[in-house]
Amino acid sequence: MQSNVVNLAEKFRKFSEYWSPRVVAEMNDYQLKLAKFQGDFVWHDHKDTDEVFLVVKGAMGIELRGGTAHLSEGEIYVVPKGGGEHRPFAESECHVLLIEPRGVVNTGDSGGELQAENDVWV
Amino acid sequence: MQSNVVNLAEKFRKFSEYWSPRVVAEMNDYQLKLAKFQGDFVWHDHKDTDEVFLVVKGAMGIELRGGTAHLSEGEIYVVPKGGGEHRPFAESECHVLLIEPRGVVNTGDSGGELQAENDVWV
Repeated sequence: MQSNVVNLAEKFRKFSEYWSPRVVAEMNDYQLKLAKFQGDFVWHDHKDTDEVFLVVKGAMGIELRGGTAHLSEGEIYVVPKGGGEHRPFAESECHVLLIEPRGVVNTGDSGGELQAENDVWV
Repeated sequence: MQSNVVNLAEKFRKFSEYWSPRVVAEMNDYQLKLAKFQGDFVWHDHKDTDEVFLVVKGAMGIELRGGTAHLSEGEIYVVPKGGGEHRPFAESECHVLLIEPRGVVNTGDSGGELQAENDVWV
């Protein structure tokens, strides 16, 4: 049964692109994705779903219309659906586990050059 | 916005009971729960849902009818719904993040003395 165990550090070593989430596991109709953040993402919103950020390594922030959430390793933040316009950023490379429904696009309703291909596994 | 950031280590310090999941965050109709494992849990099944185990600290195993999955810190295992009868165990104290739909009971369809009260937050 070992083949189904997902080692996060090992998966993170397999890609280097920033802002490009990679799926590592599925639970019902949800996906667990790994992403490397560095620099500033785009302001965007996911109107139909909450979105979980769990920092695996490093530190990051999420600008929200009402303030900024600062996250360090071992910390979780849930961006609420609706009214949850937000912009993730990281001064240095940060490794993040995202949890969201299958099909969610990283840039939400904003699109743009940072929109990543969806459902890419690592 | 700092008040909504969940620090896993801080939350784990707030309870000591084994096999007694505590909710720390919700995402849509899913809950993120922390649990401390030590010893052997009961064989049980969740027929309607997958279940995610993410080891935050320590090591654990999940006996499955087809073998045993061994998980160390930073590793994830998804127990599939249906046919997923399983029994978690840990030789030493292990800190685990569980992800499952709101309402899932820890012992699934097995009940027994290790069945924990549901929806307890920490």
